[in-house]
Amino acid sequence: MEHRIIDDLGAMQQKTLAQKRFGKRIGVVPTMGALHEGHLSIVRRAKAECDFVVVTIFVNPVQFAPTEDFDKYPRTLEHDLELLKPLNVDLIFTPTEKNMYPAGYDTFVEAGSLTKRLEGECRPSHFRGVTTVVLKLLNITSADAAFFGQKDYQQYCVVRKMAADFNLPVDIFACPIIRESDGLALSSRNRYLSSEERTQALALSQGLKRSQCMLEAGVADVKKIRREIQAIIETSPLAEIEYIAIADPLTLEELTVIPNNSHNIASQRHFWRYILPENQLPRAVVLLAVRFGKTRLIDNCLLY
Amino acid sequence: MEHRIIDDLGAMQQKTLAQKRFGKRIGVVPTMGALHEGHLSIVRRAKAECDFVVVTIFVNPVQFAPTEDFDKYPRTLEHDLELLKPLNVDLIFTPTEKNMYPAGYDTFVEAGSLTKRLEGECRPSHFRGVTTVVLKLLNITSADAAFFGQKDYQQYCVVRKMAADFNLPVDIFACPIIRESDGLALSSRNRYLSSEERTQALALSQGLKRSQCMLEAGVADVKKIRREIQAIIETSPLAEIEYIAIADPLTLEELTVIPNNSHNIASQRHFWRYILPENQLPRAVVLLAVRFGKTRLIDNCLLY
Repeated sequence: MEHRIIDDLGAMQQKTLAQKRFGKRIGVVPTMGALHEGHLSIVRRAKAECDFVVVTIFVNPVQFAPTEDFDKYPRTLEHDLELLKPLNVDLIFTPTEKNMYPAGYDTFVEAGSLTKRLEGECRPSHFRGVTTVVLKLLNITSADAAFFGQKDYQQYCVVRKMAADFNLPVDIFACPIIRESDGLALSSRNRYLSSEERTQALALSQGLKRSQCMLEAGVADVKKIRREIQAIIETSPLAEIEYIAIADPLTLEELTVIPNNSHNIASQRHFWRYILPENQLPRAVVLLAVRFGKTRLIDNCLLY
Repeated sequence: MEHRIIDDLGAMQQKTLAQKRFGKRIGVVPTMGALHEGHLSIVRRAKAECDFVVVTIFVNPVQFAPTEDFDKYPRTLEHDLELLKPLNVDLIFTPTEKNMYPAGYDTFVEAGSLTKRLEGECRPSHFRGVTTVVLKLLNITSADAAFFGQKDYQQYCVVRKMAADFNLPVDIFACPIIRESDGLALSSRNRYLSSEERTQALALSQGLKRSQCMLEAGVADVKKIRREIQAIIETSPLAEIEYIAIADPLTLEELTVIPNNSHNIASQRHFWRYILPENQLPRAVVLLAVRFGKTRLIDNCLLY
């Protein structure tokens, strides 16, 4: 396994570029480590779609604000490597901060309106850091495809928009959210939750489920649905809601009524084929950000 | 020739990606058209260095400020194609504005301190447009190498910095300035000059030459050299100086004394091999921007 772990940028670039010249399709799975079954499911998808798979493990300082949890973000490299072992990926890339952002580093991606909403409002420089590191990782790995989790739905949209605007020759995939049997979406930050908080955090997935039921029952009024989700989350006394958004699944613009069907389905097929197994197109996305003590959780679901 | 001209982004991306998978080294020469011998010399260099050469012709609106000459920038496509014919390039890419920047386009490169000085001061959003379009063109053409003119020296430095910071797997070359026999640097904007202005514009190359002679004679005081250049340019009554800068050739920070030799030559070799035939490393760069009527000219030289 060890020889498959590379921390040098130049060596990684040479290895993947050589694979590309052999005609191999290269897939990259960018992670910040602290891997769990959610990540592993993404890696499996990458293996199924590509000839040569690189998993990157890098806690990217640039996407954390000074007030955020960069220093205490979980770093569990040995355990991560154990988890990856049976998946037999081709390379694991573990660059250092100093090599990714050497002295004098000062070039960033300035992504547009998608990065201003929701997470971007709560974490103003977050997506600048995300898009910059993703672009770097795509370049270092000569990726033909990159795999993200739907869990970070807005991140997926932002990365996809960057890829489209910059004409990156890379397909951007989103893989389904993996949940505990009780509904809690897997997250590297779940380990921070006290058992009390852990129990109360179920309100997120319960709220999302309620929104799906309401729409199925014919309620398309966003205010009503949002009020219901809010009521469910507020039954958890430890929950502090940052946002409950019901938005267009492509632009993330907030809706007032959930439309009957996505306008212009044909032009959207190309987008959705990287995320949906279904043939149906989503009418909206529900996005939640809720704090439990010091831990900030996000979750989302698509509405059909 | 016609079948080698492509305006569709997707078609171009497919063609070059296929070449790359065959193991070909792809070179791209980004231009805004209005080609002259300067451009042609760059294309020849690209042909010498690469297996498959793409010349792009695109007047990039994003690098012009609203007050600048975007609308009247010369567009001479038929003549450009005539000039390129004997060079036998593999593809000529002539994208439309609408395909490069479709509705909703909003992702840009935010390059750092190098873009704030000199040209960046005179033209604040210029390099944001340059880096963005160059990144897009590199991605569309799957370039392994990109070729620029030393005439736009700061642009070369800015693009090279972006390539380094974003880990682009692309070598960035600068090719020597081509001059008329009387010394005027070739430029697509020279055609705007009246014959009076054309004559007076020789002051630029004369000023540069003077700086080289002074340094050879042992004058390393930047103030003295700048004063001499200024005096030479001011003999032209139509000249309006925007800047005369004598700067570090890598950082473009202005100098007060020209150093005896570049600090840390070893670490710089990698940079300079894409620009210099000589074995010597430059000690400084002199950069000029001067207006003649409505026409803005730039020129530069390296000092050894």
